[in-house]
Amino acid sequence: MTTINFKNVYVKSRATAVGPLEKDGPLGDLFDKSYDNNYCTETSFEKAERMLVYDAVDAALRKASLKVDDIGLLVGGDLINQLTSSHYFAKDLAVPFIGMYGACATSSLVIGQGALWVEHDMADNVVSFTSSHVATAERQFRYPNEYGVQKKETTTSTVTGAGAVVLSKTPSHIKVSAFTPGKIIDWDHKDANDMGLAMAPAAFDTIQTHFKDTHRDFKDYDMIVTGDLSKIGFSFLTDLLVQENYHIDNRLHDCGLMMYNFDDQEVFCGGSGCACSMCVSLTKLLNMIEQGEMKRIMVVATGALLSPVAVQQKESIPCIAHAIVYERSE
Amino acid sequence: MTTINFKNVYVKSRATAVGPLEKDGPLGDLFDKSYDNNYCTETSFEKAERMLVYDAVDAALRKASLKVDDIGLLVGGDLINQLTSSHYFAKDLAVPFIGMYGACATSSLVIGQGALWVEHDMADNVVSFTSSHVATAERQFRYPNEYGVQKKETTTSTVTGAGAVVLSKTPSHIKVSAFTPGKIIDWDHKDANDMGLAMAPAAFDTIQTHFKDTHRDFKDYDMIVTGDLSKIGFSFLTDLLVQENYHIDNRLHDCGLMMYNFDDQEVFCGGSGCACSMCVSLTKLLNMIEQGEMKRIMVVATGALLSPVAVQQKESIPCIAHAIVYERSE
Repeated sequence: MTTINFKNVYVKSRATAVGPLEKDGPLGDLFDKSYDNNYCTETSFEKAERMLVYDAVDAALRKASLKVDDIGLLVGGDLINQLTSSHYFAKDLAVPFIGMYGACATSSLVIGQGALWVEHDMADNVVSFTSSHVATAERQFRYPNEYGVQKKETTTSTVTGAGAVVLSKTPSHIKVSAFTPGKIIDWDHKDANDMGLAMAPAAFDTIQTHFKDTHRDFKDYDMIVTGDLSKIGFSFLTDLLVQENYHIDNRLHDCGLMMYNFDDQEVFCGGSGCACSMCVSLTKLLNMIEQGEMKRIMVVATGALLSPVAVQQKESIPCIAHAIVYERSE
Repeated sequence: MTTINFKNVYVKSRATAVGPLEKDGPLGDLFDKSYDNNYCTETSFEKAERMLVYDAVDAALRKASLKVDDIGLLVGGDLINQLTSSHYFAKDLAVPFIGMYGACATSSLVIGQGALWVEHDMADNVVSFTSSHVATAERQFRYPNEYGVQKKETTTSTVTGAGAVVLSKTPSHIKVSAFTPGKIIDWDHKDANDMGLAMAPAAFDTIQTHFKDTHRDFKDYDMIVTGDLSKIGFSFLTDLLVQENYHIDNRLHDCGLMMYNFDDQEVFCGGSGCACSMCVSLTKLLNMIEQGEMKRIMVVATGALLSPVAVQQKESIPCIAHAIVYERSE
């Protein structure tokens, strides 16, 4: 069995910080902090991303009434090579640190890891965080936005933001109840401008694995939310699930399709980046659990593990999806 | 307390694959596989590194009489952006995968993670692996070797190789008894050609943390082996420890100083790369435990978490050291 069940892991606090486009989106009011431009008062986009991480972690700690010394473990990761945003943020805190990389699936990876640490009493309070930035990710994985390269309709838009969550054994209304780590799935898709399509099979595999492990189905979840498959990948995943006779029953959603207003925001096929699933989960989704509107939500964060160099050399895009289950606890 | 103790984690099998320079070094005969040139029969250095991972994992599984289906979790990481070697290797195996990044400290990170998974019954057999390659690392972090840029005397030489270890609860002579995750330590060192000096304070911090957590000292270990501090960093670490009145008593060593013959191999200040600590640990060090020559060894893998871009912009080199303790089990 791949799925790991947690008995005693709760969300103690959570916080998010975002850029201007995210602030203008339908979830804008839910984020703890936002900036009017993508520099976030800093002098480079890389430093801006680091600032967003700082804001998110700082706010999460304040909400939990914790100081840095109270953190037993920091688990972080981001999209920038060498996890620059995470490492250069964490270097100023004297806290044990674990760095993880799963592309946009990093959000579930760091939360799963944090939950593990709490469950087995390796730390009282773990802070899991992740970030992404439209300018840092675009120039690393495709082209600098300043080039003005025309984007394909299949492209997604990297979310500028960061999210941090404090996990502990202290009961709260939000329980982290399970973690299903994914396998790397590669259906030989090679278009780095259509990563949603490449990632859908990974989400499909993780959802199937989770259902098999837990003997559950869509009906057992108020929502199963992928992050982030784009309109195209989401449609492909739906097809794959329907072909296998799953009854989705309107319970399948996608974080990248919730982040923006498609009518008046230029975001092509949806949001992406590891801040997307993180920021949507920690606000809209967990709010619904906290307020008792939903009882069980699974977030299936998907990541395209591509190397831009490998893809330029005609290699495929391996993908992965890691799932976290959140439950309402009374 | 930061240190995590394991009660029931053993090394079931281990294997290594290396390039020609490593084969010609003093440990040459101990590696399971080696290649006559750095392309390892492949068409690019990146693919060569992937081949080394394949060789190491394949040999480790064979020694343990396991098939791919018997692996509950693969934990991997490497130095290449987006963990290319690890992800593109693992894409062909349908096994749950977790990717971690801690620069050259990744070796201890993946073994610590694997041990955690085994200890808490999340998988029967975990394969932890890591790799590095002199040509892929040099061109990503400094300059392509083909440029012929003159190297500084303080430079280290990235080890071309990969190591894989199968961890399980089945008792063997080699027990993985503890994991001390490190903090990110930054003493504002900025010379990417002298990373040993930058990393020494991280090793110092982790060793101190481990001693404090366990109420032990150098006398409780047959060897404490850093990886990889270079001659300069190793000397600096020794100074730091002596200043704090630790009695090292010839028990402190460094993987990067064991890998090559300094008399006739051009390796500047020593070996580095996450394959260095991995390949030295899995051969020379664990052989001594297996054969009963040593009872307890701690490997303190050190990583320079630099971003080449950040360093070019005059930022510092944050560093980390993660420690794993191996013990002889009768």
